[in-house]
Amino acid sequence: MSGNSFGRRFVVTTFGESHGPALGVVIDGVPPGLLLDLAALRADLDRRRPGQSTLTTPRTEADAPEVLSGLFEGRTVGTPIAILFRNTDARSESYNQLKDVYRPSHADYTWEARFGWRDWRGGGRASARETVGRVAAGAVARQVLAGAGMEVVGWVQRVADIDAGPVDSERVGREQVEANAVRCPAPEPAARMEAAIRAARAEGDTLGGVVRCVARGVPAGLGGPVFDKLEADLAKAMLSLPAAKGFESGSGYAGTFARGSEHNDPFVPGPGGRPLTSSNRSGGVQGGISNGMPVELSVAFKPVATIFKPQHTVTRTGEPVVLEPKGRHDPCVLPRAVALVEAMTCLVLVDHWLERLTPAPAVCT
Amino acid sequence: MSGNSFGRRFVVTTFGESHGPALGVVIDGVPPGLLLDLAALRADLDRRRPGQSTLTTPRTEADAPEVLSGLFEGRTVGTPIAILFRNTDARSESYNQLKDVYRPSHADYTWEARFGWRDWRGGGRASARETVGRVAAGAVARQVLAGAGMEVVGWVQRVADIDAGPVDSERVGREQVEANAVRCPAPEPAARMEAAIRAARAEGDTLGGVVRCVARGVPAGLGGPVFDKLEADLAKAMLSLPAAKGFESGSGYAGTFARGSEHNDPFVPGPGGRPLTSSNRSGGVQGGISNGMPVELSVAFKPVATIFKPQHTVTRTGEPVVLEPKGRHDPCVLPRAVALVEAMTCLVLVDHWLERLTPAPAVCT
Amino acid sequence: MSGNSFGRRFVVTTFGESHGPALGVVIDGVPPGLLLDLAALRADLDRRRPGQSTLTTPRTEADAPEVLSGLFEGRTVGTPIAILFRNTDARSESYNQLKDVYRPSHADYTWEARFGWRDWRGGGRASARETVGRVAAGAVARQVLAGAGMEVVGWVQRVADIDAGPVDSERVGREQVEANAVRCPAPEPAARMEAAIRAARAEGDTLGGVVRCVARGVPAGLGGPVFDKLEADLAKAMLSLPAAKGFESGSGYAGTFARGSEHNDPFVPGPGGRPLTSSNRSGGVQGGISNGMPVELSVAFKPVATIFKPQHTVTRTGEPVVLEPKGRHDPCVLPRAVALVEAMTCLVLVDHWLERLTPAPAVCT
Amino acid sequence: MSGNSFGRRFVVTTFGESHGPALGVVIDGVPPGLLLDLAALRADLDRRRPGQSTLTTPRTEADAPEVLSGLFEGRTVGTPIAILFRNTDARSESYNQLKDVYRPSHADYTWEARFGWRDWRGGGRASARETVGRVAAGAVARQVLAGAGMEVVGWVQRVADIDAGPVDSERVGREQVEANAVRCPAPEPAARMEAAIRAARAEGDTLGGVVRCVARGVPAGLGGPVFDKLEADLAKAMLSLPAAKGFESGSGYAGTFARGSEHNDPFVPGPGGRPLTSSNRSGGVQGGISNGMPVELSVAFKPVATIFKPQHTVTRTGEPVVLEPKGRHDPCVLPRAVALVEAMTCLVLVDHWLERLTPAPAVCT
Repeated sequence: MSGNSFGRRFVVTTFGESHGPALGVVIDGVPPGLLLDLAALRADLDRRRPGQSTLTTPRTEADAPEVLSGLFEGRTVGTPIAILFRNTDARSESYNQLKDVYRPSHADYTWEARFGWRDWRGGGRASARETVGRVAAGAVARQVLAGAGMEVVGWVQRVADIDAGPVDSERVGREQVEANAVRCPAPEPAARMEAAIRAARAEGDTLGGVVRCVARGVPAGLGGPVFDKLEADLAKAMLSLPAAKGFESGSGYAGTFARGSEHNDPFVPGPGGRPLTSSNRSGGVQGGISNGMPVELSVAFKPVATIFKPQHTVTRTGEPVVLEPKGRHDPCVLPRAVALVEAMTCLVLVDHWLERLTPAPAVCT
Repeated sequence: MSGNSFGRRFVVTTFGESHGPALGVVIDGVPPGLLLDLAALRADLDRRRPGQSTLTTPRTEADAPEVLSGLFEGRTVGTPIAILFRNTDARSESYNQLKDVYRPSHADYTWEARFGWRDWRGGGRASARETVGRVAAGAVARQVLAGAGMEVVGWVQRVADIDAGPVDSERVGREQVEANAVRCPAPEPAARMEAAIRAARAEGDTLGGVVRCVARGVPAGLGGPVFDKLEADLAKAMLSLPAAKGFESGSGYAGTFARGSEHNDPFVPGPGGRPLTSSNRSGGVQGGISNGMPVELSVAFKPVATIFKPQHTVTRTGEPVVLEPKGRHDPCVLPRAVALVEAMTCLVLVDHWLERLTPAPAVCT
Repeated sequence: MSGNSFGRRFVVTTFGESHGPALGVVIDGVPPGLLLDLAALRADLDRRRPGQSTLTTPRTEADAPEVLSGLFEGRTVGTPIAILFRNTDARSESYNQLKDVYRPSHADYTWEARFGWRDWRGGGRASARETVGRVAAGAVARQVLAGAGMEVVGWVQRVADIDAGPVDSERVGREQVEANAVRCPAPEPAARMEAAIRAARAEGDTLGGVVRCVARGVPAGLGGPVFDKLEADLAKAMLSLPAAKGFESGSGYAGTFARGSEHNDPFVPGPGGRPLTSSNRSGGVQGGISNGMPVELSVAFKPVATIFKPQHTVTRTGEPVVLEPKGRHDPCVLPRAVALVEAMTCLVLVDHWLERLTPAPAVCT
Repeated sequence: MSGNSFGRRFVVTTFGESHGPALGVVIDGVPPGLLLDLAALRADLDRRRPGQSTLTTPRTEADAPEVLSGLFEGRTVGTPIAILFRNTDARSESYNQLKDVYRPSHADYTWEARFGWRDWRGGGRASARETVGRVAAGAVARQVLAGAGMEVVGWVQRVADIDAGPVDSERVGREQVEANAVRCPAPEPAARMEAAIRAARAEGDTLGGVVRCVARGVPAGLGGPVFDKLEADLAKAMLSLPAAKGFESGSGYAGTFARGSEHNDPFVPGPGGRPLTSSNRSGGVQGGISNGMPVELSVAFKPVATIFKPQHTVTRTGEPVVLEPKGRHDPCVLPRAVALVEAMTCLVLVDHWLERLTPAPAVCT
């Protein structure tokens, strides 16, 4: 593969540049017979959409999905589902000054190093607009997972140093997350996060933070044995997101301060003879395979690289220069990143779930 | 693929169980013409070897590599290199009691959920013995990378709450890391780490911690554009390691507390007209592609699940039981994990480097 | 992958159904910097287009390509190129009678067996309309190959029992092939083929035949070592085409009648010290790897399954029924199949050529 | 991947050179719980073994399989099965003269063109000894398929111009095939084939021919939709075999002489309401997917390139030279190729069967 596809069974390929004619996604491996809920698809996309609130970039894109294939009489037929998004609010002229200058901590220089040149309009394909196709694919995956009793909920756990505090991962739902523009289910920290984001924007600065996500109803037995551990694929999925710099499964970094006797999750008898664990420091994954408990993870997002302050950098020819930024950007990606983290979680889960469906042809006695 | 292979160009497939006849690895995609340094290969393996010091498991395996293919007159010929390791010190009888009991925070239950049954001797394929093949493959990758001027150095940054403090990632070398059994280049914290590990073992308990790793000499331009970002592949590689629960690239979680104006890495003119950054919070990767600065990462390892204290758990038939552990294990994986983190870093880098070599057939003017 | 992608470096994914909104292709792995000749792309598509001559189906589709991504200032940027084709002349009502009936030697029954149900309009995704994306991708591949001195020419070698006779594979060009509607470079057999196709159509019947194809300028050294032999990938490519039932490399089946002493291709000194062979029964491939001589292959296409005669078949519920066909189809796919065979040849060659570009980092002395 | 692996679900990786320490195979994706019949495995290997009869090469290799992993208590555990074969009768000195000379129609020159140099001892990895791992993997696949009611039988259909005549593909079994050394189930042609092979050997010459193969009990619904058609994967599998130059599915090239009205396979009601076809010119595959009828194919093998007559060729430095061959080779690969064709057929079928097992999570109503 050449880097624009994700998944082994439920294979997602995205295409498109920020200021090109369109972006899109092809989803191969969708099980046949699913009645696709297009309203739910659009609802997922709206959570990622630019211009959705005053906390995000003012670029306005409807991001209306056009489904080009794979549906017949409203249902999936097992063939690739292609979904198209036209770009409508691209303003390339703002980027003219960036043709020959490398923005700090952006992909400008590295894409040139990789490909020899770059589409400098709005970041080209390195723009976070690429993720619209991921969210569309994640929405389809979410609907497949729902049929198997799985549910994925993400939220903003932290913005800069403002933490949401304990969130009940067994119960938190989309309603609570959507109750405010920052997508933090704890109202009081949410208000402070929102204020911090507005303050940073006012100063021309940006903030980072942490998204947490839980998948409930995940059956035991999802995950590859060695390299394709469930956590490994989740980690890859999350670090493939723009601005992501860290990943945790279950107790993550905090768990490294505990002793084994404190950290282990004791098994207890559960319903139907299946074991449960009385704690979930494993984050629902043991030995790389799900154990039936909620799958929990976190993702660290760095502060947005585009700031509205002068910055020192160099030109393509190596001359030092002071960059005065233009363009439209988010002061903090966290509120929109919730949709991305959920989408990638759905993609990984559906991939492993489809893999797991293969039954054992021979039975041990 | 079915989960036992890693990489797209430099493809590593491992096989073998902890108490089976042998473990091994097949490495496909090794460039032809490389004079393989077998002594260096063995040196890398010795750092992972059980029984190497009193801080590790007393299981003694020579882990002497037998190269079965892919070499001719001492050089690689471009065909798969298969390397075999015979198991010699397996004591399966210690595990008899574990046939029908699920060890807490181990893979016993989840492998049964995935595969229907399991090889219960020494953890079967879920044992960390599987990683011997990874280290062998990583050693081959390291030699390929060395020819291109790249060097990978890992170390123990933290054990439980004992931190190594600042380590100069631009200069730290294997000599300093190997100066003590715990593989921490800061002597004083290393001594405390070692004492803590011995104390935990004496109590039948275990510790976790953090490995950091740096790759120097990585040219700008390594990394796939969207899903196969360098950080994404590194994250997957690290979370595929036994006991790994977290990953950071560059500033990682700590970086989320900074503002964009504090976090961005300014570009400055460098030698040969290529830009450098005056800080490296990006950890050498921007937009998923290397920028020519050192690639830096960290991995969180949970405390070892095998403790020498009674634990509550359940049997295969769902009966609660108290488990009295036997077997031989490490009180802390960190010292040996350095070899694993380095190996996986080498595998990811060589994969992306081989991909990058493909030149652009057409030249822009 | 899930069956709708082809290639390892130059990865082509097609989507779309015969009577859905659109068909298309995403091409990942196109080298950056190529000035894409859109007129040449359209010219390749016109050779596959339905309604191009009185020998083909009367369905009229402009098949005008809309390039959605991957180009900047007319050049490839190394990101996926998505190309869209709107369906405009679909007449689904002709297919209403086929909802519950399996057409003999079509994919109706087997797609139901595979996917549980099917889009019965115009064959759904099993329609040969799917190949429009392949030809578009092949056209891009052809332009990449041209930059490396490679050229691919196919022609109709045989229709039913009318053979073109000897064709000079070292010299035959598109001009000769395009000189008649049947795409056979030998004028007199071409005329007889054309008459035979018209006669078959008049009788409501269909014909099969053989396409041959040559790739000139292929450098020595393309091809994988064991499973991914150049011939193996070509064989897969060709048998993935609708109606293809056979493949030959070089002397193919005819060569099996010769003795080794008659069949071997003697090496002779060539220009620049590189060996040539004085015959080319190997078809340019030895041990699965190109040897610098023209790569030659043939593909057998069965007679079109849609005939305009009553046929015995069964319904979805297993009732015997006589099928009276409707719809619009080709009496013989051979003339249009030339474009398909060339496209797939280009895709295989560019994939192996990109793989081959990776140089050996170490040099033997 | 790098060319030494085959399959997507049942992934086979072979390694080893003709005169290296060992050859082997790693099989990933074997369903857990299968009681592996090692005697049947050895029986399959014996059919490929050199030195098995006076019709084959006199090189004597026991090819005794050593299973290194993946079994526990005699059953598969779902982890990779590695199987090792030591080389014991390698006589490298016979090949000394070939270091600097390219054998006509062998892989000597092309491997050098691909890899820069080569292991010249016995053909290195280009030797047909590589296929020992394929046959071992095919034997495992065959046992998985048997559990699902599938059976694969191949035979020699033709040697040079001696054809077996009609063979009843619905009934032919291994017993008839193994009744003579040439593996042709028709006794009288078999005797003539054997005489022809002996005569060719006596003259220092070699013969080619055709293997046919049938898979019975294949359920309807195996095969990918577009690029991964069952016939496409079979074609790739067969053309990846040494000396293979052609492939046919069902009626193949002969079918191109028929009209559609003659070639179509009428559907008739079958047992259990499932349709059968009253003829099988499709060879059990329609639209790339199995239709429940026997899957039938043929493979063309060119005459062996190693002949015992002087041949004109060139040296590595481009000097013309007359080659006087030494070494040990088959005068005709057909008798041993039956085992290879069966093995590759089993590998393709098991791969598609495992893929097919994934049920549709949603049901159409």
